Amino acid sequence: MQLNSLQLSHVLNVWPVARLASLDPMGHPHQVPVVFVCVDSLIYSPIDGKRKRGGTLQRVRNVAANASVSILLDHYAADWQQLWWLRVDAAADTVSAADGSFERVVAALQSKYPQYNTTAMFSSAPTLLRFRPLRHAAWSAQPIDWGSL
Amino acid sequence: MQLNSLQLSHVLNVWPVARLASLDPMGHPHQVPVVFVCVDSLIYSPIDGKRKRGGTLQRVRNVAANASVSILLDHYAADWQQLWWLRVDAAADTVSAADGSFERVVAALQSKYPQYNTTAMFSSAPTLLRFRPLRHAAWSAQPIDWGSL
Repeated sequence: MQLNSLQLSHVLNVWPVARLASLDPMGHPHQVPVVFVCVDSLIYSPIDGKRKRGGTLQRVRNVAANASVSILLDHYAADWQQLWWLRVDAAADTVSAADGSFERVVAALQSKYPQYNTTAMFSSAPTLLRFRPLRHAAWSAQPIDWGSL
Repeated sequence: MQLNSLQLSHVLNVWPVARLASLDPMGHPHQVPVVFVCVDSLIYSPIDGKRKRGGTLQRVRNVAANASVSILLDHYAADWQQLWWLRVDAAADTVSAADGSFERVVAALQSKYPQYNTTAMFSSAPTLLRFRPLRHAAWSAQPIDWGSL
């Protein structure tokens, strides 16, 4: 199923978590949950202050070597009639604080996630992963109004 | 973080949903939410009767060509202190009803998911995806008792 652009931005604006799949240097899939915002039809996810192992994160190294990623938003419920998912195939790169969009993205993240009042948005040098959507697919167990989730 | 085998089976037994990342024929990551059970240290997911597009599912075609998959279980909450994830890298294949483990896996799925009382466990020829775990990694925002989630 294809969503129109209004439905797509709505789902991306209201849903708090996505799973990011990138490719590791061996070409194996690598997944991690991420928070994100959608600004001007691009999706951004910060390398934030949630507890990290240190060093450059796997997801950052992965997209530097291979930009191909999948972003999955989905709703699981014991009532399987309520299930839905939205998958976005995207090309990823990283954005530093010098980028023109940086301040707007940070503001959008602060607005979407009040958690950033008490959690550092960046763990070290401010870095955002940026995802340029290439195509998407959506599914729901029964017809739903994607524009008012 | 590494879990011991008891913790690992516990999380796999109680958590209802995972996200499966496989590789499409172009080598791009492909994600879909899945239900699953763990039997004898192997993870199984049925191609079930939830509404499908028809034809052989992308996930089945993907693992037939490339067995490398990632399975991600995670907990998202507005309270970021409660976040955790468990990622399993695995080798996938498919299992038909002729396989010796088939009946036990079906019984485990019926036990874990009462939804199969009203949803068909298989959409056509009974097929299970089988995942042989190769390694895992786990993370939590604060220390948690993985053995009693």
